[in-house]
Amino acid sequence: MDDLLAEARAGNRRAIGRLLSVVERGGPDADALTEATFASTNLPHIIGITGPPGSGKSTLVGKLVDAMADQGHSPAVLAVDPSSPLSGGAILGDRIRIDTGTANAFIRSMATRGHSGGLALAVPGAIRVFDLAGFDPVVIETVGVGQVEVDVTATADTTIVVANPGTGDAVQANKAGLLEVADIFVVNKADRPGADDVRRDLELMLDLSHMTGQEELSGRRPPIVMVNSLEGTGIGELLREIEAHKEHLEVLGQRSAARLRRLEAEVRTRVLADLEQRSKAVGATPEGRQINSMLADGTITPIEAAQRLGFLL
Amino acid sequence: MDDLLAEARAGNRRAIGRLLSVVERGGPDADALTEATFASTNLPHIIGITGPPGSGKSTLVGKLVDAMADQGHSPAVLAVDPSSPLSGGAILGDRIRIDTGTANAFIRSMATRGHSGGLALAVPGAIRVFDLAGFDPVVIETVGVGQVEVDVTATADTTIVVANPGTGDAVQANKAGLLEVADIFVVNKADRPGADDVRRDLELMLDLSHMTGQEELSGRRPPIVMVNSLEGTGIGELLREIEAHKEHLEVLGQRSAARLRRLEAEVRTRVLADLEQRSKAVGATPEGRQINSMLADGTITPIEAAQRLGFLL
Repeated sequence: MDDLLAEARAGNRRAIGRLLSVVERGGPDADALTEATFASTNLPHIIGITGPPGSGKSTLVGKLVDAMADQGHSPAVLAVDPSSPLSGGAILGDRIRIDTGTANAFIRSMATRGHSGGLALAVPGAIRVFDLAGFDPVVIETVGVGQVEVDVTATADTTIVVANPGTGDAVQANKAGLLEVADIFVVNKADRPGADDVRRDLELMLDLSHMTGQEELSGRRPPIVMVNSLEGTGIGELLREIEAHKEHLEVLGQRSAARLRRLEAEVRTRVLADLEQRSKAVGATPEGRQINSMLADGTITPIEAAQRLGFLL
Repeated sequence: MDDLLAEARAGNRRAIGRLLSVVERGGPDADALTEATFASTNLPHIIGITGPPGSGKSTLVGKLVDAMADQGHSPAVLAVDPSSPLSGGAILGDRIRIDTGTANAFIRSMATRGHSGGLALAVPGAIRVFDLAGFDPVVIETVGVGQVEVDVTATADTTIVVANPGTGDAVQANKAGLLEVADIFVVNKADRPGADDVRRDLELMLDLSHMTGQEELSGRRPPIVMVNSLEGTGIGELLREIEAHKEHLEVLGQRSAARLRRLEAEVRTRVLADLEQRSKAVGATPEGRQINSMLADGTITPIEAAQRLGFLL
C-alpha cells in the first residue's frame, strides 16, 4: 500500500486506478486507505454535476474536462453509476467511459457495490485519492434522482444541475430536490426546440424560491448556462461561472465549511452502516428469528418487532 | 381515529384520504394507525410499477386502473414522489394526479417528507389503509432510479418495469438494477420509432441473465408487453400478464413470502430510522460536538470519529 501511495503521489495512473479500486471495493483496505490519505489535502475544488438519465451529462463532462485541462488544470472525474440492488453490480454498461481526449485528466466510472453506505463512502474515498495525486478540480457526476446521489452532489463545493429541452426536466429536477441545491444550472442540448422553455421554467422556479427567501441564505441567484455540449458551445461560459462560484465561496470563507459538511456526512454514513450491519446480524440470531416469526404470524406488529430488535443491538 | 377507521372500512373516500395523510405525515399518529390496521388484511395483490421520469407511467397506470375497474376490481394507486432533501417537500408539481375516469378506483400521490425512512414506512402504511378499505389490487408507482424507490418496487408481489423507445432506457434500467427485479416489462409509447430496439435490448439482457442463472431462481422469464398507453393498446395483454404472474406466485405459495419480505423490510427501516435519530441526537451533545471539531481540525479521521460516536449511542 505504501508503494502504491508513493506512486499515486508521483502521478502514476496505474497506481491511482488501483487505489480507486480499493475504494470501490470498500471494507478494511478502503478504511486503511482513508487513514493513510486523510491528512494530506490540497483542498481541490469539488464540483458535483447531476441531471436525469440521458441528459448528456457525460458528453458535457468530457468537454468541460478538456477545457479545464486546456487552461492548465488537472481535472479528475468520478462518474457514479447506480448499482444493482440484487447482484451488487450492473451486468452491462456500468463502465461506459466518458469520451475525452485529454492526457492530464483522469476519468473513472464507479459502481456502488452492495456494501452498506457504498456510494456515500466511496465518493469521499475517491476524492482523497485524486487529492493525493494532485488533481484539482474533482468532478463528481451522478444521475440526479436517487436521494443518495442528490446528497453526494449537494455536498460538493459547486453543484451543477443539468436539464434538457422538451422533457419536463425542470419540474422533475424540482421534484428530486435538485433546484434547491443547484449553484449553477445548465440547459444542455440548447440547440433543440424547447430550450428557452426550460430556461423560463427554471427562472420561474428561482423566482418562486426567491419569494420564499431561500436565495437570501446564499446571497446569490444561480445562473442558467445554455450549452450544446456536442458542439462545445457554452462550455467557456460554464467554466467562467464555475470559477465565479469558487471565488464567491472563498470570499465567504465557505470552502472549508463545505469540506466539513462532507466529512460529517461521511461519519454519519459510517455510523449508520455499522449499525445496519449490527442490525442484520441480530436478525440472524435465535432471538432475531423468533421476532421475525412472530411478525410473520401476526403476533406482534412491525413497531413492536422494531423495538424488540432495537433492544438486541 | 376509531371513527375514521370505521368510515374508511365502509369505503368513505374522505376518511381514507385522511388516514393516508396520517401515514404521509409519519410519527406517533402513523404508528398508532399501524397498530390499529396491522391485524386486518385481505392480502391485496401488490403491484409495483417503476420506470424513468417521463416514461408515461402515470398515463399507463391510469389506463390500467380503468381496465381493472371495468373487470370488477377495486384498484388503489399510491404514486410516490421523490421529495426534496432540503425543504422536506416539493415546491411545484408534487400533487399531479393521475388521470382516471373510474369511480371505484382510489388514486393518491404522496411525497416523502423529510423524516427518516419516510418513503419506506409510508408505503406499507398506505397499503394497510387501502387493504382496510377493501381495495385490491394496490398499485405502487415510483420513479425507478433511487435505491429506496427500487427497494419499494422490488418488494411488490408483481413488479412492472416501464421502458421507452429511443432513450437507452433498457441500459439505464439495467444500471439501476431494475432488470433483475422485473416480473413484467412494458415498452410504453410502443408506436414510436425504436420500440422494437428496446424490446430487443431487453430480450438480450434477459438472455444474458438466463446464462448467469438468475432466471432459474424464479423459474419464469419476464414477458415484454408492448403498450401505447395514450391509445390504450396493449393494456389488455398487460392485465392478462399481471393475472398470470399472480397465479404463478399462488401456485408457488410465494404470496405470503412476499408479504413477509415487505414486513421485514419495514421493521429494518424502523430500527435504522430510530438509530439515525439517536445518532443525530448524539452529534448535538457536548461529546458529539467535540468529536466533530476534532474531525474538522484533522486530529481524528472519519473512521475514528464514527467509532467514537458509535460508542455514545
